[in-house]
Amino acid sequence: MTEIVLHNYFRSSTSYRVRIALAMKGIEYRYVAHHLRHGGNRAPEYLAVNPQGLVPALVWSDGRMIAQSLAIIEFLDETVPQPPLLPSDPAGRARVRMLSQMIACDIHPVNNLRILNMLRGRFGADDTAVAEWFRHWVNETFEPLEKILAESPETGIFCHGDTPGMADICLVAQVANNARFNVDMSLYPVIGRIRDACMELQPFIDAAPARQPDAE
Amino acid sequence: MTEIVLHNYFRSSTSYRVRIALAMKGIEYRYVAHHLRHGGNRAPEYLAVNPQGLVPALVWSDGRMIAQSLAIIEFLDETVPQPPLLPSDPAGRARVRMLSQMIACDIHPVNNLRILNMLRGRFGADDTAVAEWFRHWVNETFEPLEKILAESPETGIFCHGDTPGMADICLVAQVANNARFNVDMSLYPVIGRIRDACMELQPFIDAAPARQPDAE
Repeated sequence: MTEIVLHNYFRSSTSYRVRIALAMKGIEYRYVAHHLRHGGNRAPEYLAVNPQGLVPALVWSDGRMIAQSLAIIEFLDETVPQPPLLPSDPAGRARVRMLSQMIACDIHPVNNLRILNMLRGRFGADDTAVAEWFRHWVNETFEPLEKILAESPETGIFCHGDTPGMADICLVAQVANNARFNVDMSLYPVIGRIRDACMELQPFIDAAPARQPDAE
Repeated sequence: MTEIVLHNYFRSSTSYRVRIALAMKGIEYRYVAHHLRHGGNRAPEYLAVNPQGLVPALVWSDGRMIAQSLAIIEFLDETVPQPPLLPSDPAGRARVRMLSQMIACDIHPVNNLRILNMLRGRFGADDTAVAEWFRHWVNETFEPLEKILAESPETGIFCHGDTPGMADICLVAQVANNARFNVDMSLYPVIGRIRDACMELQPFIDAAPARQPDAE
């Protein structure tokens, strides 16, 4: 039996994405926590596993390692097809990938802990400036994301139709992050409605940061 | 006949990625330039096409729009299969997506023009500080990328075996960007070798920023 290890941090929203996908697929895994705020991800033993020293990374007992949350999610979807996390048609898949990447490329990376730390250390940003930066980049993308979701006939109970998938996973993890910086979610009723629909589902509940073994 | 329009900016490295993929697939398209430095992408007519106001976006004459470069590339690969831009096996696909996302999530977004402009406007960063920021985030990811490429038996002439694909597309576009900020590429011999192999291929040559109609 192949063991799967998820290198992880409870508060990392990219880790949260992968936890939701694993829970939706019903895949058992061992949880290994790396405390990002204490630099646990830069330990030599972890760099030997994932040279990038970031979480999440999924590692199989045969030695295979996949890093980058969306690459992991697509691999899980291709190898454990039920329930599907992407639609079966190319146009639908493109739309879900677009919505996912709006969050995964245009919000998360620029608001990541290492960026916020650099703003503090290099440019003397205080808590107020860091929170403004965070909210600015969320709003820059949540405004068009809300518009696309509100106007598209392909939006259903979830981002794409009435079954949850990869875009919903990204959305939920981002909204959880936003809460720490007081993003005004009343501006985004459709995003909020989809988030609430997800949070009624057990995989989303179980994967939440507060439920993880390293939660503070 | 469906017309395809690529909303584009010659110097945008995400646009460059999509131009390479279109050229590799032999897909004809109409080039529409948006001058990012002059805010051309924020024009109301363009926001009606792509609410996010970013390039690239690919628009079909039947009204379909796909934004986000990796979503576009995967759509092209699914609908015009030859030559393939991703491997056929899930593990290989995961590796190519991981390598692509290391660049597309962890380098490009934090070094994008809008971020550098914010560093200048909000934190008073000068040219030196902006260049340091740019190089820092390139090096943070190029170091592990070089290590993964150098040590993996799956690396060939290109990032994954001996045929060029999505990871090479991301790599070439990022190296082109790096040149504007004097990143020391002697630190990355494998990345440099792969980049040079790509630049012998006509689609990579034709898609280069200097060859585009809006090049300055």
